[in-house]
Amino acid sequence: MAIKKMILDLDTGIDDALALALAVEDPRVDLIGIIASYGNTLVETAAQNSLNLLHLLGADDVPVFVGEAHSSTTNHFDVMPISMAIHGDNGVGNIELPIAPRTVETKSGVQFLIDAAHEFGEHLIYLPTGPLTNLAAAIQIDPEIATLIGQTTLMGGALTVPGNVTPFTEANIHQDPEAADFAFTHQKNLTMVGLDVTLRTLMTKAHTQAWRELGTESGRLYANLMDYYIDAYDRLDIDHRGAALHDPLAVAVAIDPDYVQTIDLNTRVTYDQESGDYGRTIGDRERLNEPTTTKIAVDVDVERFVRDFQEFMLDVLK
Amino acid sequence: MAIKKMILDLDTGIDDALALALAVEDPRVDLIGIIASYGNTLVETAAQNSLNLLHLLGADDVPVFVGEAHSSTTNHFDVMPISMAIHGDNGVGNIELPIAPRTVETKSGVQFLIDAAHEFGEHLIYLPTGPLTNLAAAIQIDPEIATLIGQTTLMGGALTVPGNVTPFTEANIHQDPEAADFAFTHQKNLTMVGLDVTLRTLMTKAHTQAWRELGTESGRLYANLMDYYIDAYDRLDIDHRGAALHDPLAVAVAIDPDYVQTIDLNTRVTYDQESGDYGRTIGDRERLNEPTTTKIAVDVDVERFVRDFQEFMLDVLK
Repeated sequence: MAIKKMILDLDTGIDDALALALAVEDPRVDLIGIIASYGNTLVETAAQNSLNLLHLLGADDVPVFVGEAHSSTTNHFDVMPISMAIHGDNGVGNIELPIAPRTVETKSGVQFLIDAAHEFGEHLIYLPTGPLTNLAAAIQIDPEIATLIGQTTLMGGALTVPGNVTPFTEANIHQDPEAADFAFTHQKNLTMVGLDVTLRTLMTKAHTQAWRELGTESGRLYANLMDYYIDAYDRLDIDHRGAALHDPLAVAVAIDPDYVQTIDLNTRVTYDQESGDYGRTIGDRERLNEPTTTKIAVDVDVERFVRDFQEFMLDVLK
Repeated sequence: MAIKKMILDLDTGIDDALALALAVEDPRVDLIGIIASYGNTLVETAAQNSLNLLHLLGADDVPVFVGEAHSSTTNHFDVMPISMAIHGDNGVGNIELPIAPRTVETKSGVQFLIDAAHEFGEHLIYLPTGPLTNLAAAIQIDPEIATLIGQTTLMGGALTVPGNVTPFTEANIHQDPEAADFAFTHQKNLTMVGLDVTLRTLMTKAHTQAWRELGTESGRLYANLMDYYIDAYDRLDIDHRGAALHDPLAVAVAIDPDYVQTIDLNTRVTYDQESGDYGRTIGDRERLNEPTTTKIAVDVDVERFVRDFQEFMLDVLK
């Protein structure tokens, strides 16, 4: 079996930094590039953060492409105060990372996705952890990629639990519900890894202390980064027990689907500003009896995932 | 294996009439009584409808008990105009049913449920198809029944699809969200059969015409009853393909769980009037990592259920 090619689409972001580490180092996938998105940070900041993290992990060979700078329905993007409170003003917990020698590619992130879909087809895993703006833009330019891409696993949405922006809306979906609806209703083989499962997988300072005690630069920096996130979860009353492994869980599920239980459900995203449920991921009443294109993760083997992820990080950071 | 005892709690109602037929006639359960609820009709009307339907089916031996007349937070109940539009002014499609010789019991519906929980325990299936007011009232009087009742299978709620009263709220839950939340957070071995699955199971006039052609009084009356409901679905733009088998699906699932796929999820019902999602069945963020007490049906074998149900009805009405 050929090793799958993976593209991450990151609004890097602290938990994005963990997803990046997992995708770079797991031998079961070949990370062929990162697309930068706006979201937790501005798109330029996300791109630079990804370059710096790749450099920190000795992966300067992975290219970074710049995606869309704002949602499909706006001309401008400002980072939300809550995003800065969780991820720091610079997206990586106000930690100073060593600057990568490499710079971003000239090809756009959207074009990179389209080209990779044609080149790798069913062997390609596309994994967005932020807004779905780049995916929707790519499908609108080249509708064929909706069926070409082998597997799309996204972090975002909330089906069976409340959202984290409104009672209905998860943060990534909230950035661009129109694009998210287009992606959910067009992209084949889509798996949603949302708050339904990610809120259950928590990392604590006991975990990060073990990274720090490895005595390496990457161990120290990743521990500092993650501690900022754990402190934010505590300070903002999100969870006092630890911080959710949103984005790395999505990567883990893309590699090993057995971490989660999924249900088949044709899903859409509401974007009627008047409806009171703007940005909700919900079953599509019109397609309930049709063949399904979307899987929604609804339960997770918390113990196995957190244990495996910690073992993995201790190996990567040593 | 002893045959399970079943109590139906019905706000009878057209699809309730189908659930009643299934519970009366299926040899795999012993219907020991019906509790009447307000909801699709006033509680007195629901009680009389159940008595008349039992009489029509030759089951005058089944007692009917009167439950609560209004929600746990009100002193009065008026039938909603939409309920009358769907079920008729008399709850049974404005059809005149022969009047049963039997009358309602003097014991209250709530007391009947409590007594049966103690008498039959794990062998008891309790199946509410309307508001959860009677169940919540019974648990509040005698908390032990929350663990005594072997199995509670309810028709109501909407987890993965929009509601039918608001985008978040299903009609049965909407009648008394406070009682529903109390039931979801207290009752053990609860299975929710909600719009997630019931909206997929449709009955058409081809089905009811076959009932009519049996040439029996029960076949003719049940066909007229169900045609009223199918016409209402069409007229009110609920579904133009047919009418949903909400309540009978719940009975079928209680008897044979293999009709549906369920997920385990500790669920609650929101009832904050200010929150914008009053009456929503949703995962309980506070109990996501705890052992589960509730199963939610999220997918259904439509073909098998509709075929089995039609075969069953043709046998019952012949």
